[in-house]
Amino acid sequence: MPDKAVVLVSGGLDSCVTAAIARQRFEPAFLHLNYRQRTEKRELKAFHDIADFYSIHERLVIDAAFFGQIGGSALTDRQIEISPADLHSESIPSSYVPFRNANILAMAVSWAEVIGAKAIFIGAVEEDSPGYPDCRQDFFTAFNHLIQLGTRPETEIQIHTPLLHLKKSEIVLKGMELQAPLHLTWSCYQEEQEACGVCDSCALRLRGFHIAGAEDPIPYRNRPVY
Amino acid sequence: MPDKAVVLVSGGLDSCVTAAIARQRFEPAFLHLNYRQRTEKRELKAFHDIADFYSIHERLVIDAAFFGQIGGSALTDRQIEISPADLHSESIPSSYVPFRNANILAMAVSWAEVIGAKAIFIGAVEEDSPGYPDCRQDFFTAFNHLIQLGTRPETEIQIHTPLLHLKKSEIVLKGMELQAPLHLTWSCYQEEQEACGVCDSCALRLRGFHIAGAEDPIPYRNRPVY
Repeated sequence: MPDKAVVLVSGGLDSCVTAAIARQRFEPAFLHLNYRQRTEKRELKAFHDIADFYSIHERLVIDAAFFGQIGGSALTDRQIEISPADLHSESIPSSYVPFRNANILAMAVSWAEVIGAKAIFIGAVEEDSPGYPDCRQDFFTAFNHLIQLGTRPETEIQIHTPLLHLKKSEIVLKGMELQAPLHLTWSCYQEEQEACGVCDSCALRLRGFHIAGAEDPIPYRNRPVY
Repeated sequence: MPDKAVVLVSGGLDSCVTAAIARQRFEPAFLHLNYRQRTEKRELKAFHDIADFYSIHERLVIDAAFFGQIGGSALTDRQIEISPADLHSESIPSSYVPFRNANILAMAVSWAEVIGAKAIFIGAVEEDSPGYPDCRQDFFTAFNHLIQLGTRPETEIQIHTPLLHLKKSEIVLKGMELQAPLHLTWSCYQEEQEACGVCDSCALRLRGFHIAGAEDPIPYRNRPVY
């Protein structure tokens, strides 16, 4: 039996490809966080569709509504407008949730310790989030150190970030190579029927498929002309 | 105006004394986590009583029910019995929630960043929890490093653990010295009307008052004979 790994699966492209990579060496357990973002319903459907595709038995959906309680985030506060895509900006986007990855990883570690998993996979991508301080290699290295110090002596849990240094186009190609179910994923921050094609997340994804020379299999309301 | 500090206030003795210490140098903002422990109602009352006593304006009660979802803890799973007090044991008690302090601190950092607080106060006590790996100095040091890496460049948040190396009796004396409202606190894991006097938390607290030569002002069903 392979070791278990907790895989953080939002339902988006990156987490789907991350799951495809994790299952090459581990038995995945899927963890989804509902932090009451606008498109949670659609993302949760994508989470279960991908989990079904891979016949994942261990699934946990955590209610992380506290992100909304804490506030300060466009993703969780419907009154703050999402910034239009600006892929060249180095500033921290309005969808930033302070210290989000630390919260997510802390939950993943707690669950990993309970179910005896040896790894946590998170589909963080540095290129997507140049302004997110909790999305860099040295942050994840520091978190691995924290896990060592903060869990039972016999616990050995390592964070894996297989996409961290990939470009979106490379993630698309990796997903296609592993036959990941990209058609089941959802990335749009704005819409739940057809992806809007204009939010940051859609823009990054569409450009990634374009550069990879592939067609994004999900429906869009607007597709940019390159 | 003094800088703000997020103070983690469960409603127990330690967090009350921690708040008394924090307000010597900071303007406290009180953060309480409801992780659906048996005595949450009583602890929440203690939280608000202490906050009222100190006229705290900024208060946040976070729903952290996910601890119960993740499981593996006697505090959150009503079907697991609380271990009888064994103050000499070095093993990890059944009330252990894996990586709990990491989760708590991650939320506190998120809120601190949103409200512009410069400090987080947590009433962790090493003596109480010899088996808790996330309750030691090197864990908090590593967490401070993680905050530096994982927050906005201009953010400066430091974790303060003023009770970490104190004995319970010293905490009682410190609270009395600062005229902290110890009569408003609640520590018992089992009961909400009169403290049980026999769970770990009651036993530690009562022994602390005994050694300090003081009378614990809250009602007990059973008081040990020393």
